[in-house]
Amino acid sequence: MLKIDPDRLLDDLKRLRSFGATGPGVVRLSLSPVDMEARRWLAGRMNDAGLSASIDGVGSVFGRSRNDGPALLIGSHTDTQPTGGWLDGALGVIYGLEIARALAACDETRHFAVDVASWIDEEGTFSGFLGSRSFVGEGIDESIMSARNREGVLLGDALAQAGLANTPRVRLDKTRHKAYMEPHIEQGGRLEARGKSIGVVTTIVGIRELTLRFTGQRNHAGTTPMSIRRDAGAALVAFIARMNEAFKPLADADTVWTVGRIELDPGSFSVVPGAAEMALQFRDASAERLRAMEAALAALIRDFNAHENTTVAIRASEPPEEPVTMDAALQAHLADAAEACAPGQWERMPSGASHDAQVIAPHVPACMLFVPSIGGVSHDFIEDTADAHIVLGCEVAAHAAARILRSMRR
Amino acid sequence: MLKIDPDRLLDDLKRLRSFGATGPGVVRLSLSPVDMEARRWLAGRMNDAGLSASIDGVGSVFGRSRNDGPALLIGSHTDTQPTGGWLDGALGVIYGLEIARALAACDETRHFAVDVASWIDEEGTFSGFLGSRSFVGEGIDESIMSARNREGVLLGDALAQAGLANTPRVRLDKTRHKAYMEPHIEQGGRLEARGKSIGVVTTIVGIRELTLRFTGQRNHAGTTPMSIRRDAGAALVAFIARMNEAFKPLADADTVWTVGRIELDPGSFSVVPGAAEMALQFRDASAERLRAMEAALAALIRDFNAHENTTVAIRASEPPEEPVTMDAALQAHLADAAEACAPGQWERMPSGASHDAQVIAPHVPACMLFVPSIGGVSHDFIEDTADAHIVLGCEVAAHAAARILRSMRR
Repeated sequence: MLKIDPDRLLDDLKRLRSFGATGPGVVRLSLSPVDMEARRWLAGRMNDAGLSASIDGVGSVFGRSRNDGPALLIGSHTDTQPTGGWLDGALGVIYGLEIARALAACDETRHFAVDVASWIDEEGTFSGFLGSRSFVGEGIDESIMSARNREGVLLGDALAQAGLANTPRVRLDKTRHKAYMEPHIEQGGRLEARGKSIGVVTTIVGIRELTLRFTGQRNHAGTTPMSIRRDAGAALVAFIARMNEAFKPLADADTVWTVGRIELDPGSFSVVPGAAEMALQFRDASAERLRAMEAALAALIRDFNAHENTTVAIRASEPPEEPVTMDAALQAHLADAAEACAPGQWERMPSGASHDAQVIAPHVPACMLFVPSIGGVSHDFIEDTADAHIVLGCEVAAHAAARILRSMRR
Repeated sequence: MLKIDPDRLLDDLKRLRSFGATGPGVVRLSLSPVDMEARRWLAGRMNDAGLSASIDGVGSVFGRSRNDGPALLIGSHTDTQPTGGWLDGALGVIYGLEIARALAACDETRHFAVDVASWIDEEGTFSGFLGSRSFVGEGIDESIMSARNREGVLLGDALAQAGLANTPRVRLDKTRHKAYMEPHIEQGGRLEARGKSIGVVTTIVGIRELTLRFTGQRNHAGTTPMSIRRDAGAALVAFIARMNEAFKPLADADTVWTVGRIELDPGSFSVVPGAAEMALQFRDASAERLRAMEAALAALIRDFNAHENTTVAIRASEPPEEPVTMDAALQAHLADAAEACAPGQWERMPSGASHDAQVIAPHVPACMLFVPSIGGVSHDFIEDTADAHIVLGCEVAAHAAARILRSMRR
């Protein structure tokens, strides 16, 4: 009988939390001394579980099953945001560890191969998704040469400092790794709002990050009549209203767009802003809808520049990220396991956040499972999930892992 | 025959420009070494003109006519903004000097008393309008004890450094000073747009400076559906649109309002802003209209807080400044002189900017005269006024001064 050990699972999560614990939260930035300490502890726990563990040349912890493949790879990340929560990626990594242990303790599954990974720097302290990108063979040497953290430390120097300069990097083995599963906290309030305990991810949404810069004429705010102003800030505010109207008919219930930053230049009471800038992000599970939103924005900008006395220029702040669909067969195994462990308590949903799974999915069939975030909060010291949800999520993931591995061996 | 000397006027303006000259602009911050050097030069020029000049205990330069009163006081300021223009307040001070010289050289006016002042720190390097406030007897000891410049230097220390610690402060003498005139560049584009050469100021507008802070809920911009967001930034943008609609029917052609600064917290692509702040300033010549705008804003805020899922709080960032009306009889003298020197080339207008005249007007009848600013630009290195306008403005001011002094002696 396949059974996870709830106490062992929670104890390991709490032990991992202790590395970088800050109040209720965790500060464990990629490759920092406390992060490396946590990685060494994790490798030890993997070895205890019978895996063959190592820290690779970029800092990812990889625990390889001693069983032959086909293998299911379970992973996520144990690095955190600058003021991070205790679960975030840590949950999925410890789930992998517990599932490897649980499968090894069950007669039917003891010969199944579960490899477990903690990918380095999902959060982008130096360069986002570094571990998973390295794993799938994306070129990361450019990042190692040039990426820096907030303190200006070069990634290459941080790796050398961590003693990893001459360590080999673990790479995807397509003859062995036939599927990838990433369990994660939801990081939103949808499951909680709908009274569900498990989310089966359909798609990781695509993202556009754009900067719009408005140019007008800086002027004295007392002596420049409204009628002759070319106020870049007022133009920006008016543009947002038009953009909202243009996006609404294109959106579905899961489409999101956010103006996260606005800056007026020079930014004082007495000066009509001569320039204004805003950070615009939008996300959707449909590549077609993202393109429709881009086209609507381009049309608005053309119209604006043709008719207003200020101008607007747009630039991409990040390369576009296209939506990534989770493997249908793996989704079905997750759904079957969820229905078996928690009948009626699960639903399918997109992931509004980015995950290592989107890097890996183009190379290996991939799936994701969510557990609820209390209050929808993440990337915050108060991020949390009910113990019962943590345990249930791991049970579902373990049974899904068994189903996936069983199907591979047929 | 009363005649100013255009070359002497322009030469003195250019000589004053050389103190702190930076490209076409001037950097001459209150009480800086170069500002004190300029003040000593100015006192010397006042003495050359037959005035009895001194630098007082706060740094104002005061040139007292050796003639008995009643006296007309002509003044403005010679300190500049951090990146200032060459005319700004300097124009009015050198006008005063030239007018004192011109009246002294004319038989009819040689016994008239014109006192000339350069008020310290109009621009608020330490504490705005310091010189004029001190002159009219406002308490400034608090400012001397606590006001600091951008480098953190205490005003009291800067005065000591300038050698003024034990120097008496010049004070308004109501038995002598019967009128105040402040010539100044317009700092806006109105005269230029209307093809006029002289502005006779009716009122210095009142000002409100308010900070509005919106509070919502910070959230992940990917995982928080639009329907459940409490986006403080979106709330701010929506509020501005409503505010514009509320202000428009209250405004006349000279009413101005400006959102000069917007900040979203935390200000990143991926986070729904949990808080947002804006700096709002509005100005008008009518105290009643300013109160109507305040009331409209208060009603909007009440309505917003009653119906939205975000809240807004308002606070005054500066004490309200009420409009200050220029003396009607003095305005009439300016208008008569303008019509005599430049028939049809002048008009009455409010001052959208603040001036030392608003500090002095409650104590002594006061008036202001404007000359055009090229392109409406001021507080900028490229600030400028055509030589012909500089000369014409001084002629008008000189003839107005003679009319004012003549009327006083009747």
